[in-house]
Amino acid sequence: FETSNIQHDAVDKGNFRHFMLKEIFEQPSVVADTLEGRIVDNQVYIETLGDNAAKVFEQTEALQIIACGTSYNAALVAKYWVEHYLNIPCLVEIASEYRYRKTATIPNSLFITISQSGETADTLAALSKAKGEGYLASLTVCNSPASSMVRESDFTLLTRAGTEIGVASTKAFTAQLVSLLLLTISIGKAKGLDKETEHNIVKALEHLPSEIQKALDQAGDIDKLSEAFAEKHHTLFLGRGQQYPIAMEAALKLKEVSYIHAEAYAAGELKHGPLALIDKDMPTVVVAPNDNLLEKLKSNIEEVRSRGGSLFVFADKSAKIQGSDGITVFPVDSSYNVTAPIVYTIPLQLLSYYVAVIKGTDVDQPRNLAKSVTVE
Amino acid sequence: FETSNIQHDAVDKGNFRHFMLKEIFEQPSVVADTLEGRIVDNQVYIETLGDNAAKVFEQTEALQIIACGTSYNAALVAKYWVEHYLNIPCLVEIASEYRYRKTATIPNSLFITISQSGETADTLAALSKAKGEGYLASLTVCNSPASSMVRESDFTLLTRAGTEIGVASTKAFTAQLVSLLLLTISIGKAKGLDKETEHNIVKALEHLPSEIQKALDQAGDIDKLSEAFAEKHHTLFLGRGQQYPIAMEAALKLKEVSYIHAEAYAAGELKHGPLALIDKDMPTVVVAPNDNLLEKLKSNIEEVRSRGGSLFVFADKSAKIQGSDGITVFPVDSSYNVTAPIVYTIPLQLLSYYVAVIKGTDVDQPRNLAKSVTVE
Repeated sequence: FETSNIQHDAVDKGNFRHFMLKEIFEQPSVVADTLEGRIVDNQVYIETLGDNAAKVFEQTEALQIIACGTSYNAALVAKYWVEHYLNIPCLVEIASEYRYRKTATIPNSLFITISQSGETADTLAALSKAKGEGYLASLTVCNSPASSMVRESDFTLLTRAGTEIGVASTKAFTAQLVSLLLLTISIGKAKGLDKETEHNIVKALEHLPSEIQKALDQAGDIDKLSEAFAEKHHTLFLGRGQQYPIAMEAALKLKEVSYIHAEAYAAGELKHGPLALIDKDMPTVVVAPNDNLLEKLKSNIEEVRSRGGSLFVFADKSAKIQGSDGITVFPVDSSYNVTAPIVYTIPLQLLSYYVAVIKGTDVDQPRNLAKSVTVE
Repeated sequence: FETSNIQHDAVDKGNFRHFMLKEIFEQPSVVADTLEGRIVDNQVYIETLGDNAAKVFEQTEALQIIACGTSYNAALVAKYWVEHYLNIPCLVEIASEYRYRKTATIPNSLFITISQSGETADTLAALSKAKGEGYLASLTVCNSPASSMVRESDFTLLTRAGTEIGVASTKAFTAQLVSLLLLTISIGKAKGLDKETEHNIVKALEHLPSEIQKALDQAGDIDKLSEAFAEKHHTLFLGRGQQYPIAMEAALKLKEVSYIHAEAYAAGELKHGPLALIDKDMPTVVVAPNDNLLEKLKSNIEEVRSRGGSLFVFADKSAKIQGSDGITVFPVDSSYNVTAPIVYTIPLQLLSYYVAVIKGTDVDQPRNLAKSVTVE
């Protein structure tokens, strides 16, 4: 298997106050590293997967992804990409659920695990179970070349995030997303994805490090914004489509480091329950990119607004959502729809970080949590 | 199509303070009505589906269920049943997500919608979209014989819950679960489900009205228990396997009627984030039946306990979970594993109701919510 040439210095926080902040700021280089050598002449080519992978991908008629926590949220984004670009079903399930129940396998399915450490107990057990379930092969998207997950899988796609010290995953998540998009194209190539689509996604990926850098340059503004959350006990995160899992990851991050009870909902579910919670004490964060779902999100925003809730809308500069009394708009600069989930992740990570700093929590080592869940 | 002979008097609350409580107490008869005429000689036979349904079921190699809110939680329970008993994949998605994205259909899939009103806008739009997606046929599990959903679907399975007035769904949910279990057996029969399994499930269904009645007889104890939640602003609900969606529905119910921010997690995900939230102010409710996952749940309970969280464990009488300082055990009498999700629903509905009454909310008409979400 491959190892990354680029070493991130894990032991030294440098000029950063916490590892979490350092790791958030490493993301332009982490993404560049994860892409390195995998895009040749505007095409994706993951040499380390080998010729045999192309043969398996050609036969693949469905994907089953298994993960926990942040990796599970990455898997949910991949579902949107895979079904959109490849037109094959992509099923995603929490490892602790998959491993203990009688499951049904779609014929010609590829089994995929995602884990930063490659040692997550439930995910490893799911992989072990899957071997008797008739999958074509197993593939792991993993950050640790020497891990059990890599050893036990037929194929490995390394995420090259470097050592992550902060318990709340940040750079490993974006590296997972980039890897999953590369994997989506790789499977697509074996199944006849057209060159133009591939080129467009490659172009978006190549611009990603600079788009992430632009988002990081707004850190000061996010720091100011975070003051509005420090006294709150609840937050609702809303997203639609491929940004729904990004809302889930943002809620998880805020939970982990600030101990604020944050919960994400698919925006369309708002009227089916969570709207009852909305009052002035429960701010709502909306992930609102400028795609075809924007009009729907605007109507969700109005619903919250009219019930007295304060809104924080992360919106594309071109989205033309106006800030007003109770609505704070934070502009995000994202030019490519396919990679927008990765770009929007950045300000939301920063938000969790700065809220945690104000609250004075142990940011890098949140209470009750461990970096790698190697027991059940 | 069929109509139920049994009429529940919707306009009169009778001796009940709220429609929600009345509807919770109607569940033994609602379940009996939903079963009526559909079990003949220890076998499930849903005459109204017609011979053509059996032909479609025979060809069915996967299910795609689409729903919103409470109906979505019912669909998630069905996923566990279908994959366990039928060994075919059962995919479940929120209607507002499914309708707006490019989705991939598994060959020979049956498309199923679930809706109390049969007029839920997103679910109707999903059904309309599905017509161009290559499904074998469409089937709706619906409580309103004259609804758009029934009109637009190839097959209808009526839930016979009678008119539900309380905005927060209770009896419609249990009727959906019973219907989905009947549907699971019906599809199974067309696909060679063995007679013994069918008889065992039928036996469990036949005992269900009396098991629900026993759970209702504990209402006074739940009323007392509810006092512990009235001053709380957060609650975590944990479940595993087929009880995980029941934990989700319990959290949704508490949100809707008491405005407490309740959130459900698959118990195995506890260490991947939500454990950071646990302190003395955030009670945790555990749905712990006496099945093969009980030992795992006991270890989750210990994790919460050791971090100072107070626990309320709804456990089977035979589960041998001891109440102690910080752990309150509430006994549930459920003799059949397959129908346990339905039985455990009852005390959790009552808990939401009594908490809401103490808090003085408008139980039958929670703020911001409407009974039937007929607009997006």
